[in-house]
Amino acid sequence: MNETLEIKQDHKYVEVAERIETLIEKKVLKVGDKLLSVRALSKEQGISLSTAFQAYYMLESKGLIEARPQSGYYVKFSHAHTLDLPKTCDPPDDAIPVSVDDMINSVYVDLNNEKLLNFSMGAPAIELLPTAKLNKAVMHVLRQSKTCCLNYEHIQGNPALRKQIARQAFNWGGTPSEDDIIVTAGAVEALSLCVKAITKPGDAIAIESPTYFAIFQVLESHGLKVVEIPTDPLTGVDLDYLEKAIPRFDIKACLFVNNFNNPLGSCMPDEHKKRLVDMLAKKDIPLIEDDIYGELYFGKTRPKTCKTFDKKGLVLHCASFSKSLAPGYRIGWTIPGRFKEKVLRLKRMHTVSTNTLSQAAVADFLSNGRFELHLRHLRKALHTQSLRYVQAVSDYFPDDTCITRPQGGFTLWIEMNKKINGYKLHKRALKHNIGIAPGQIFSSQGRFENCFRISYGQPWTERIGQGLQMLGKLMKDMR
Amino acid sequence: MNETLEIKQDHKYVEVAERIETLIEKKVLKVGDKLLSVRALSKEQGISLSTAFQAYYMLESKGLIEARPQSGYYVKFSHAHTLDLPKTCDPPDDAIPVSVDDMINSVYVDLNNEKLLNFSMGAPAIELLPTAKLNKAVMHVLRQSKTCCLNYEHIQGNPALRKQIARQAFNWGGTPSEDDIIVTAGAVEALSLCVKAITKPGDAIAIESPTYFAIFQVLESHGLKVVEIPTDPLTGVDLDYLEKAIPRFDIKACLFVNNFNNPLGSCMPDEHKKRLVDMLAKKDIPLIEDDIYGELYFGKTRPKTCKTFDKKGLVLHCASFSKSLAPGYRIGWTIPGRFKEKVLRLKRMHTVSTNTLSQAAVADFLSNGRFELHLRHLRKALHTQSLRYVQAVSDYFPDDTCITRPQGGFTLWIEMNKKINGYKLHKRALKHNIGIAPGQIFSSQGRFENCFRISYGQPWTERIGQGLQMLGKLMKDMR
Repeated sequence: MNETLEIKQDHKYVEVAERIETLIEKKVLKVGDKLLSVRALSKEQGISLSTAFQAYYMLESKGLIEARPQSGYYVKFSHAHTLDLPKTCDPPDDAIPVSVDDMINSVYVDLNNEKLLNFSMGAPAIELLPTAKLNKAVMHVLRQSKTCCLNYEHIQGNPALRKQIARQAFNWGGTPSEDDIIVTAGAVEALSLCVKAITKPGDAIAIESPTYFAIFQVLESHGLKVVEIPTDPLTGVDLDYLEKAIPRFDIKACLFVNNFNNPLGSCMPDEHKKRLVDMLAKKDIPLIEDDIYGELYFGKTRPKTCKTFDKKGLVLHCASFSKSLAPGYRIGWTIPGRFKEKVLRLKRMHTVSTNTLSQAAVADFLSNGRFELHLRHLRKALHTQSLRYVQAVSDYFPDDTCITRPQGGFTLWIEMNKKINGYKLHKRALKHNIGIAPGQIFSSQGRFENCFRISYGQPWTERIGQGLQMLGKLMKDMR
Repeated sequence: MNETLEIKQDHKYVEVAERIETLIEKKVLKVGDKLLSVRALSKEQGISLSTAFQAYYMLESKGLIEARPQSGYYVKFSHAHTLDLPKTCDPPDDAIPVSVDDMINSVYVDLNNEKLLNFSMGAPAIELLPTAKLNKAVMHVLRQSKTCCLNYEHIQGNPALRKQIARQAFNWGGTPSEDDIIVTAGAVEALSLCVKAITKPGDAIAIESPTYFAIFQVLESHGLKVVEIPTDPLTGVDLDYLEKAIPRFDIKACLFVNNFNNPLGSCMPDEHKKRLVDMLAKKDIPLIEDDIYGELYFGKTRPKTCKTFDKKGLVLHCASFSKSLAPGYRIGWTIPGRFKEKVLRLKRMHTVSTNTLSQAAVADFLSNGRFELHLRHLRKALHTQSLRYVQAVSDYFPDDTCITRPQGGFTLWIEMNKKINGYKLHKRALKHNIGIAPGQIFSSQGRFENCFRISYGQPWTERIGQGLQMLGKLMKDMR
C-alpha cells in the first residue's frame, strides 16, 4: 500500500475510534450500552462502511467494545473498571550487598522452553517485527560491503549506525554527535561497562524498587551494594527519598529505568527528570539511565530522557534495538558523556568490537527511514495488547488484585492478596506450562512476595486468555 | 572443480614441490643452483607440464626459488639462511599489578586507519576467507529460520553450532558434548568470563612472556597480578620455571596461548602440555588455554591442546572463529570444564546471548563440510606468506636482527640490536604509514624495548616488500 494513503486512511478510522473511546472514558457511553450499527455510524459520520467497520474493529481489539452475534456492538470495558494500582513499596533499612539467587536462574532457564505460554519474556513477539525488511537490509549490506562484513568493526561501532543513533536521539531532545556514541552487544553490555566505569567494588548504587533482575546481576558481578529507592507505579523514583538517601547511604551512582520501567511500567515525568539531573549534578554523582523502552510510548509524544537535561556529562545513557527492532542482533549503545574514554577502554577489554553484519544491517534499515513507520505500528500493537491483557486480568483475577497502568513498554506488575506467594504461584503455573516472573526476583532481599510480572509482548490469542484465566484460578485456589 | 579431483591434483604437485623443498633444506640444492626446466622436470618425474609448472609456482610463491627471465628457475632461499632465533627472556623478579599504558591505545587506534600498511593487525586478510560461501550461509539461515534470526538465542549458544564445535574438537583429541560448550562474543569475551570465574581481584595469574596485550587488558580489568613466565620461541612456557614460580608467587591460575602463541609463534610440544596439565592438576590450579590459532598449523597435524589431557575439568579451553573464518562475526566459545555453570552465569550477567544470525550462519557453514577445505587453503596461504615475510626480513633487516620461526598462526617476533627502541621505531614507521606493534606492549613492565611484532596475515605484495624494506632502513638509521 502507498504509504501516504495508508496514513490518511489510518487517520480517518483512528480519529472516529478515538472519539468513541473518549465517550467511553467520560462515561457518556457506559459498559453494556449498545452502539450504533456500522451502517448507521457510516451515515452519521459521513464515512465509508469500511472505515466505520475499521473503527469498531480497532475498539474491539482494544477490548473496549464487543460484537454480540445478531445483535450489534456493545461497550464492554473502560479504564475506570480496572483493578487498583499497587502502592509504592516501603524502602528497606540499609544498603545491601547484592545476592542473586537460584530463582532467577530457574526463570531464565524456562525462557527457552517452547511449550511454555511465556508471560515472563520481556520482548516483542517476532510477528510484530519487520522481518522481511530486516532480511533485505542484511542482503543489501552483504552485497555492498567490500569485505562481506567479515572485517572487525571499529571498536566504538559502525560510523553509519552511530550517525543514525545520533539522529534518533533528536526524538528525546538529545543532540549527541556520532563520536559520543559507543555501540555494544545489547543494552546489558552497555550497562555492565558503564557500571564498571563509574564504580568500584563495595560502592553503593541507587536503583528502583522493584527493579529488573538482570540489573541486580550486573551489579552483583561488579561487587556493588544496592540501595532500593521507593518507586511510584506511575511517576517512578521518589526523588525526595533519594535526596535524603544519598548522604545516608553514601550513594556513589544511580541506575534507573525512567521510561516505562520494567517491571512497574512507570514513567518519570520530564520535570522530575530535570530535577533528578540537577540534584545529582550538584553532588557530582553519575547516573546510568537505561532507556530501552523509551521509544515504546502509547501517548502522543516520546518522553524525554535524563540525558536531555545533562549539562555536566554525568548521565550515561544506555539503550538498544532489542525491544524495538531486533532482539537477536544484540545491538545496543551507550552515550556515556564524560566517561566515554573509560567505557571505550573497557569495551576493548571485554568484547572488543560488536558484530559487524548486524550493525551494518541495522544502519541500513534505519537509513532508509522505515524505522519510524515500524515504531508507529509497534506502539499501536503494544498499546492494544496492554489493554487486552489488563482487561483479562480484571476479568479473571481476584477482586483484591492490584495492577499497574503502563503507558509504554511491555510489562504489567501485579500485586496479589498478601496470602499468595508469587514464587509458589510461579511453580504451580509452570505445571500448567505457564511462565510468570515472581515478584521476589525483582528485589535484592526477596521482597514483593505477593507480586509477579507478566509481559504483554505477545499478540492476544485465545490461548493467552485461557492462560490468564488459569492464573486467576490458581490465585483463587491459593488464598 | 570437483573436490576429489582437486585434492588428487593438489597431492601430485605438492608432493613434487615438497621433495624439491627437502633437497633445498638439506643443501643438496644450494642457493643459486639452477633447477631443471619445466619440460625436463615433467619428463624426469613422469608428470604433466602443468603439474611441473604448479610445483615450481608453489616453490616460487614460498620464496624458495625464483624465475629468471630467459634463463629458468634458481634456488633462492633456504631456512638455513634466516636470521637467528631470539632468546628466551629472563623473568622479572616479582608478581606485578597489571598496568596497561597509552601505548596500547595508540596502536589499537591506528588499526582503523585505512591508509596504513598495517603489520600490527593479527587477523587473516579478507581475501583468504570464504566470503561467498559465508554469504550463502547467511541467506540460507535467514530463509530457513522461522523467526528470521531475530529471536534471542539460548544464552549457552545455538545448539547446532555447539554440535559443530564439539565435532571440530575431534581434531585436537577432544570429546566434549555440545552441552559442555558456551558460545561467546569472540575469544576475548570467553577469556574475560573464564578469568572472572576462577579468580578474585588481587590474585596472581601466570602468563607467557612476551604476551598479547589484549590479555593484559583483560587481566587488568579484573584487578589481577601477573607473573610472567619465560617462554621459549619454539617450545613455549618454561615448565621448570613455572613449577617453582607457583608456590613462590602463590599463583592461583594460568592463562597460556600454547599453540602458535601471539607474538612468539611458539608451539608447546604435546608432551609438555601433558606435563603442564598433570602439574596443575596436582595443585588444583585451573588453566585457561587460549587456542585461537590452533587450527592454523603449517605442519602435518594439528597440535593437541591442554584440554586433550584434562581429567579433572580444570582446563578452561577458549577459542574462536575470528582468526580462521569470520573476524567480524564475533563468534568464540569456551569449554570451561567444571566451571561451566559459573561461566554461564557470568555470560548471562554481562552480555546475555550472542548474536543469533552469525551463530546460525557459522553453524550452517560448518555443517556443509566446507570448513576443512577452507582451512587447508588458509594454512597453505599463511605458510607461504610466513616464508615470504621471513625472507624479506632476512633480506632487508640488519644482520644482527633475530626472528622467530612460527609453525602456525600469524605473527613474527623480531628482536633488534639493543640500541633500537621498538616504540620509537613504531612512531617513526607511522610517519611512513607503516604500522607495527612495539615490543613494550607485550609486557606488563614495558620490557622487550628492542623488539616488535609483525603480522603476515596479508598476502604478499610489492607494497609489503617496500614497507619491510623501509622498516629495515629505519632500523639501520636508528643504530
